[in-house]
Amino acid sequence: MLRFASDYQEGAHPRVLQKLAETNLEQTAGYGEDEYCLRAAELLRERCMAPHAAVHFLVGGTQTNMTFLSAALRPHQGAICADTGHIAVHETGAVEATGHKVIAVSGAEGKLSAEAVDAVCRRHFSDDSHEHMVMPKVVYVSDSTELGTIYTKAELSQLRAACDRWNLYLYLDGARLGYALCAQGNDVDLPFLASVCDAFYIGGTKQGLLFGEALVLQNSALQQDFRYILKQKGGMLAKGRLLGVQFEEMFRDDLYFELSRHAVEQAMRLKAALARMGFSFLSDSPSNQQFPILPDSLLERLRKDFAFSDQGRVDATHTAVRFCTSWATRPEDVDALIGALEQSPLAF
Amino acid sequence: MLRFASDYQEGAHPRVLQKLAETNLEQTAGYGEDEYCLRAAELLRERCMAPHAAVHFLVGGTQTNMTFLSAALRPHQGAICADTGHIAVHETGAVEATGHKVIAVSGAEGKLSAEAVDAVCRRHFSDDSHEHMVMPKVVYVSDSTELGTIYTKAELSQLRAACDRWNLYLYLDGARLGYALCAQGNDVDLPFLASVCDAFYIGGTKQGLLFGEALVLQNSALQQDFRYILKQKGGMLAKGRLLGVQFEEMFRDDLYFELSRHAVEQAMRLKAALARMGFSFLSDSPSNQQFPILPDSLLERLRKDFAFSDQGRVDATHTAVRFCTSWATRPEDVDALIGALEQSPLAF
Amino acid sequence: MLRFASDYQEGAHPRVLQKLAETNLEQTAGYGEDEYCLRAAELLRERCMAPHAAVHFLVGGTQTNMTFLSAALRPHQGAICADTGHIAVHETGAVEATGHKVIAVSGAEGKLSAEAVDAVCRRHFSDDSHEHMVMPKVVYVSDSTELGTIYTKAELSQLRAACDRWNLYLYLDGARLGYALCAQGNDVDLPFLASVCDAFYIGGTKQGLLFGEALVLQNSALQQDFRYILKQKGGMLAKGRLLGVQFEEMFRDDLYFELSRHAVEQAMRLKAALARMGFSFLSDSPSNQQFPILPDSLLERLRKDFAFSDQGRVDATHTAVRFCTSWATRPEDVDALIGALEQSPLAF
Amino acid sequence: MLRFASDYQEGAHPRVLQKLAETNLEQTAGYGEDEYCLRAAELLRERCMAPHAAVHFLVGGTQTNMTFLSAALRPHQGAICADTGHIAVHETGAVEATGHKVIAVSGAEGKLSAEAVDAVCRRHFSDDSHEHMVMPKVVYVSDSTELGTIYTKAELSQLRAACDRWNLYLYLDGARLGYALCAQGNDVDLPFLASVCDAFYIGGTKQGLLFGEALVLQNSALQQDFRYILKQKGGMLAKGRLLGVQFEEMFRDDLYFELSRHAVEQAMRLKAALARMGFSFLSDSPSNQQFPILPDSLLERLRKDFAFSDQGRVDATHTAVRFCTSWATRPEDVDALIGALEQSPLAF
Repeated sequence: MLRFASDYQEGAHPRVLQKLAETNLEQTAGYGEDEYCLRAAELLRERCMAPHAAVHFLVGGTQTNMTFLSAALRPHQGAICADTGHIAVHETGAVEATGHKVIAVSGAEGKLSAEAVDAVCRRHFSDDSHEHMVMPKVVYVSDSTELGTIYTKAELSQLRAACDRWNLYLYLDGARLGYALCAQGNDVDLPFLASVCDAFYIGGTKQGLLFGEALVLQNSALQQDFRYILKQKGGMLAKGRLLGVQFEEMFRDDLYFELSRHAVEQAMRLKAALARMGFSFLSDSPSNQQFPILPDSLLERLRKDFAFSDQGRVDATHTAVRFCTSWATRPEDVDALIGALEQSPLAF
Repeated sequence: MLRFASDYQEGAHPRVLQKLAETNLEQTAGYGEDEYCLRAAELLRERCMAPHAAVHFLVGGTQTNMTFLSAALRPHQGAICADTGHIAVHETGAVEATGHKVIAVSGAEGKLSAEAVDAVCRRHFSDDSHEHMVMPKVVYVSDSTELGTIYTKAELSQLRAACDRWNLYLYLDGARLGYALCAQGNDVDLPFLASVCDAFYIGGTKQGLLFGEALVLQNSALQQDFRYILKQKGGMLAKGRLLGVQFEEMFRDDLYFELSRHAVEQAMRLKAALARMGFSFLSDSPSNQQFPILPDSLLERLRKDFAFSDQGRVDATHTAVRFCTSWATRPEDVDALIGALEQSPLAF
Repeated sequence: MLRFASDYQEGAHPRVLQKLAETNLEQTAGYGEDEYCLRAAELLRERCMAPHAAVHFLVGGTQTNMTFLSAALRPHQGAICADTGHIAVHETGAVEATGHKVIAVSGAEGKLSAEAVDAVCRRHFSDDSHEHMVMPKVVYVSDSTELGTIYTKAELSQLRAACDRWNLYLYLDGARLGYALCAQGNDVDLPFLASVCDAFYIGGTKQGLLFGEALVLQNSALQQDFRYILKQKGGMLAKGRLLGVQFEEMFRDDLYFELSRHAVEQAMRLKAALARMGFSFLSDSPSNQQFPILPDSLLERLRKDFAFSDQGRVDATHTAVRFCTSWATRPEDVDALIGALEQSPLAF
Repeated sequence: MLRFASDYQEGAHPRVLQKLAETNLEQTAGYGEDEYCLRAAELLRERCMAPHAAVHFLVGGTQTNMTFLSAALRPHQGAICADTGHIAVHETGAVEATGHKVIAVSGAEGKLSAEAVDAVCRRHFSDDSHEHMVMPKVVYVSDSTELGTIYTKAELSQLRAACDRWNLYLYLDGARLGYALCAQGNDVDLPFLASVCDAFYIGGTKQGLLFGEALVLQNSALQQDFRYILKQKGGMLAKGRLLGVQFEEMFRDDLYFELSRHAVEQAMRLKAALARMGFSFLSDSPSNQQFPILPDSLLERLRKDFAFSDQGRVDATHTAVRFCTSWATRPEDVDALIGALEQSPLAF
């Protein structure tokens, strides 16, 4: 069975694991106050050209999103988000469980537009009964999105302008940030993100770490007392240095981006093959997630040898599915998948 | 200035106020454990033909909704609701503030259909990643709806069947229940509601009381420990008997429905006049709220003498507005409003 | 049966009810944006000599406490409170339900001392693991307290100084504020409270209104967006003017304090009689609540004709009870209670 | 610098790390639905002789406590706990942040007694105003406690009986369960815990894993939908198999207990030395945490070469401190610490 079901099926890149082994018996302070975390935070500040940012390390994405939003929002405030956004759909109401509404708006290809933000804000701020509605305060975007698409500099700049118009924070969920920054056609980089976002996180779990996300708090208004809330939400790892060690190893050279590039290359090979065979896609994704719409008869055969995830039936005989590549995807496995697809009489 | 802006602009029907005055200096137990509350609860059980229902009296609608939902839902569960529903739009995230997602779905004319409930449940229960999504547990409907429309027996029975299919509670927000039950074409009554709903509330604030809503908990699973949660959410009125006195006076004879019928009659006169003039409506409302779409030039003139609420611009020159009648609306005021509309050169 | 069980057994003072009747059919804006609320707020600002305070009207005390604290605290912050404090004991965890810890410390006679605040803050702020502990942010006191005792100017000034030392808000729960300000030996008044507190509320429910509490937000940092949170917590009364009408009537002359003085006088007569008979007390209360410790045999006979509340067994044969007087207590009823006590062979 | 500050200063036992390395590139399902988690759960059920228990793996202790309590409690319910309990003191209000009060009662040597549980329940359930107080529903104990002490079978059986009297769940926080079960004088084992507790967790983070806690839900009423709440609270690790791999390695033979025994032996050597020198202790701990009260002058010298944590000043010249041993403590380091203590002129 070859697995393309997600980008978190393996452990960590060998260099990361090796570093954990080398440092295993060192004694350090707990709770992220060790030298590894301090150095990794400094490294990320440098990479982001954000010398005043606060950097915190958390274990997972849902935890990062709910901890950040809980810290950023007052009780009557909420987050605007595309209706495909992870916090709107796939976190079991984690944000609501901290008391806040997720204001979901429909978005093309999994993306939120500045126009959509404006429309929500006009409705929520201009009405006579605005106090009867949740006050928007954070704009949540993910890059790459849940449909594999990415934001351009221009789009993020427009979102930034909308945030400035309405006094909102711009927050970017970077669970797959490496795959976004290495995607075809991407023009965004870490310093740009630090310049347009109030906060964002650099994903590790899906990018070659055992686990871990690095939250970059650029806006000083968001930095105060963050560690209290991190502890309260269960996000302060006792052996916090495990996070520092991993992020330092990943970012001390170009490893994070090398691995991301590899994943995108494999995904592009698959995408090109699928397009060649004439299949259409749920979204035009330039990153490591591909969402082809395939005939059910073909899928039935594929399922014997390949794992992937269903995205819902499109018509009576077709279903959209997701194939993920990752830092760990072997080229020969992609070859095998392409080969199996090509054998389908429905291809071409 | 004649006011049609809402159905809570005056105090209480004189009989209600008179009863409060008569009983004013009596000494009773607090917190709803007095004889007035006990008798009013029994009276409502009789009217609903629901001898085993628990009846609790609360002060306002948002409070009732959030207290009920907080008691009915476990942390991972949410309520399905039309996207125009009060809990989804106009309660400043009160339900989310108790930790629960409101799952809003688009609905025609402010109503939620059994098909929409099925669609949400298929998506939330059937998927492999159902544990990553909020579990639907309550279906929330309002009758009359936020657009003045009403549910039929057939529609509520279909919702009941959907709830049974998916193991959901059916909850009906009756802030304007009297106006719904006296609306043109209505075929629902209190015993029917008690037979199809797990819980519902009989509105008082907008129906001629000073304030107050009567929550009827028909399903015994929802009755346990409710008073604890009522206290916790700030909904247990110290002088609870004020609620019992008012509801008893309103329901000891036909007063509640007399007042509702009056309001609907006045609204129907206005609706007929507007239709005669050729204006269209946001919704085809048979109850006390009317939502005509009127030319801005006409509205500008009307605003000098009449108060009403805006519902949003429809096109470059038209705006939808709401006119409310109530138990307290004077027929001559409706005449005056119709007269002012008829003077418009845009009418007819 | 003569009732001394609480100070919320009757309706409202007749003048208040009369005013509600007079204004009953007036049409006003809803949600506290009417002229009555505006005037009542202005009147209270004048009485408090606090021209920049924001004044909001809520229905009940638990609602006021939880709404205020929810607005004042960030997620990791809590309120310090005497272990007899209402929010710590008798609000079914309403504050915790909004996410915040109540840090209860033992206090003599129901009062919180500046020393106790200092001790909590030293422990919570100085420790290396302060981020693992809730951050104190509000000091909650009630005046009069749950044991009928009152704060002096000196005590409140010391609490203010402690709040300044640790950057805390001082919040005073005035559910029985009139009875405190008219208590024997009191040296506090409304302008003083406005000068030492960041926020406090002036109780109405227990002081002669049908219901209602007036929250005075003196610190501008606490004023922002308060109405959103008021709506979210179910505390924004649709017919808000009912609160404005009542508070205006009560404060347009000296009525509030007249009623309070009456209650305290009756309580002092009872206290003197009990002391004369040789009974001891749970607390030395100068206000409308008295907590004598009485023999069970005496209590058994009293219960036939008098209602009062138990406060717990003190020893094998004695129980502490509470007798409340109020604005509505008739002197002849106090005479009757004293007479019944004097008939006890255990008295004297 | 030799570190005795905590039992989470190193990484993982080498066997655990080795197993993570061996399995690193295997592809498995995510979110704890892999073979490693299934096998580890089965192994723990066997060790606990609890064939019907549900076992879930979480990353840390605060997360485990708040997720469990959030799942077990309805909104008006709370947890009884010793006032030294971790959830009462050192989790930044994590439990309150999910809406629930922690009812802290004073307890000797960090332990909660059945008598204290009875006293809380009598007060909370018997009073007329019980609905105004939080309803106790969970009894929280930790073993070993925050003061290093342990519970006996008799004590836990009495707590179980108290829980049965009042219809409460008994929950045991086993962050240091291995050190408790290997402590001097311990008579408890895993099957006994499974027989008296409704739920408990077997700590990994402080016991030789990189991270991880195994929550055992023995009472079927607590098992329903737990994975939803696990996801919502951010506790569902994407690469869940990391937890299964670690627990399986630790429990496939006697490693967990071997490591615990080692830590306790080292602690007992230190304790004996301190007692021999005449020092007293905050608690009489038979497990891996020791709390001696030492002269400040001695502490000043010790701090140059040894790390440990302060527990608060005891008098003008003495401070209580904590020395932790762990699975990783080297005997020669304990020798060095004892040597340094013996050089003190204050010893003996």
